[in-house]
Amino acid sequence: MRATTIHAPFDIRIEEVPDPVVQHPTDVVLRVLRACVCGSDLWAYRGESERRPGQRIGHEFLGVVEEVGAGVTGFAPGDLAVAPFVWSDGTCDYCAEGLTTSCPQGGFWGTPGSDGGQGEAVRVPFADGTLVKLPADAAGDDRLLTALLALSDVLGTGHHAAVGAGVTAGSIVAVVGDGAVGLCGVLAAKRLGAERIIALGRHPARTDIARAFGATDVVAERGEAAVAAVHELTKGQGAHAVIEAVGTEQSMRTAVSVVRDGGSIGYVGVPHGSGGGLDLGVMFDRNIALRGGVAPVRTYIPQLLPDVLDGTLDPSPVFDLAVGLDGVPDGYRAMDERTALKVLVKP
Amino acid sequence: MRATTIHAPFDIRIEEVPDPVVQHPTDVVLRVLRACVCGSDLWAYRGESERRPGQRIGHEFLGVVEEVGAGVTGFAPGDLAVAPFVWSDGTCDYCAEGLTTSCPQGGFWGTPGSDGGQGEAVRVPFADGTLVKLPADAAGDDRLLTALLALSDVLGTGHHAAVGAGVTAGSIVAVVGDGAVGLCGVLAAKRLGAERIIALGRHPARTDIARAFGATDVVAERGEAAVAAVHELTKGQGAHAVIEAVGTEQSMRTAVSVVRDGGSIGYVGVPHGSGGGLDLGVMFDRNIALRGGVAPVRTYIPQLLPDVLDGTLDPSPVFDLAVGLDGVPDGYRAMDERTALKVLVKP
Repeated sequence: MRATTIHAPFDIRIEEVPDPVVQHPTDVVLRVLRACVCGSDLWAYRGESERRPGQRIGHEFLGVVEEVGAGVTGFAPGDLAVAPFVWSDGTCDYCAEGLTTSCPQGGFWGTPGSDGGQGEAVRVPFADGTLVKLPADAAGDDRLLTALLALSDVLGTGHHAAVGAGVTAGSIVAVVGDGAVGLCGVLAAKRLGAERIIALGRHPARTDIARAFGATDVVAERGEAAVAAVHELTKGQGAHAVIEAVGTEQSMRTAVSVVRDGGSIGYVGVPHGSGGGLDLGVMFDRNIALRGGVAPVRTYIPQLLPDVLDGTLDPSPVFDLAVGLDGVPDGYRAMDERTALKVLVKP
Repeated sequence: MRATTIHAPFDIRIEEVPDPVVQHPTDVVLRVLRACVCGSDLWAYRGESERRPGQRIGHEFLGVVEEVGAGVTGFAPGDLAVAPFVWSDGTCDYCAEGLTTSCPQGGFWGTPGSDGGQGEAVRVPFADGTLVKLPADAAGDDRLLTALLALSDVLGTGHHAAVGAGVTAGSIVAVVGDGAVGLCGVLAAKRLGAERIIALGRHPARTDIARAFGATDVVAERGEAAVAAVHELTKGQGAHAVIEAVGTEQSMRTAVSVVRDGGSIGYVGVPHGSGGGLDLGVMFDRNIALRGGVAPVRTYIPQLLPDVLDGTLDPSPVFDLAVGLDGVPDGYRAMDERTALKVLVKP
């Protein structure tokens, strides 16, 4: 089959790789219908996260079950299913509690020995624990299929940030990061009943989506001016809940600066530059909580799925460029140059 | 009157200072019956927190109301009352929400222009917002008076750590720090229904108190060995809730190492060496939350007071040395050298 590989920074290729087959009784082989490129893939693309030359890439996909291991009970060939960005066994203590990302048997798509999502097919380990079945008729609805794909990562990750930030009915929320996760954070905050959602961002194409998703205010300023603008909107106090969806020291510093005393930062941006943006002395004096991390989206998919299926939750606008498998390298380039927000892949 | 002053590192004196008087209608003058020395006073004592020469010190006290401003409605001369370690107006948004430490009119005892707790009397600003009345007959019960004094800081701070760590019925809790706050954290965790409480500490006098307060296990090892011991006790997973009651980089590193994936660190040790002990990458991968800060003990006093009054919550054993005002310099020395756990002052 053909799949995406990364050979060096900025060197993404589409290559012939071995067809996936069932290796363990709990495996399923899934034919990929939709995949996409994640903001976190760009860390590898830019060489900031190391990869072995030729390693697979891509961790967001949905598709049709093609082959089923003898030990799989929940799936049959022909089933439509979505995969979270981490596989998990579904049976350990952590999976039972919903923290599927801490499953000792879990792993990330594209790590050596596993398939990546940006390819024609994927061997899915622990399929019963990992995959979530989707209604078969969704396969014929292009818009819905795109929305469902967001369940594999960005929608669940935005939701995790909103939960970590402690968003409840009536909250004032600030969202740091105008990428797909930040925008899904807006959607999630709206769904959880936030009264006011302040999106920080300067790109009209993105802030327009933020407004469509429920942002009540947009702050286009940067740095100190952005902090001042958020304070201006919040009686000088800041936001109860801050969604941090970038992961840089600067974004964490902004998050600390715009959160209200006693509030929480829900952080889901993969941290780069460990801890440097956190002034623990400031957080201590102001009782600011930090809660989040890698999102256990497997747990959130069943919670969010009904709202996606009935259309009340529609993250599909975050995908603004669609490519075939051959277009994936261009897709990375477009996201790296910020000419695309999020690239949909139709293998 | 006589009060404690600090002139330079390790230079604590008892000096004659102006008698406090009502300066604002919302003031009360309180004659101090009991005060104490806090672990956080040692940061100033050791010169790690700057103080002006001659500045007052001490932020934990209870006493009898002596003089009352015209605007005070809740107190009359003769009332017994305890002060939290921060004064607050009781009327702002933050006070209304219980985050009294963020009151814009709040302040710390001993800051220039205010009295410190380690003296004969204190002018209490915003007395209605700040003080909490105690039953008059407690004044005749030495053990009870000592227990009630802990409400001014260490008991409420230990409780704040337990709340921040998310302790609930059935939790496995680890406590980093064997000072008075850590020990009060044990008490608070027990009160909140923790099933297992692992106290980290090497000093038998302190770990004996921890056991008496409800610790089910004591880990006397340090560093890596301590982490291994906690994992040994917890199926290799760590504690759901970790109370961090020290504030150094090392203690924060230990807290991160002993917390279970998805767990929380309730931090109340005043941070020294900002953020260095926090590896945000590890916290992200393991979904570890950090929640705490300067404890709004004014809010906790009414919640904890009934249990202290009926004896179900008795923090008095943390006080292991009692001095008069003249003995305060010796008290600092004893705490600095760890020959005393917590020094009670009877002016």
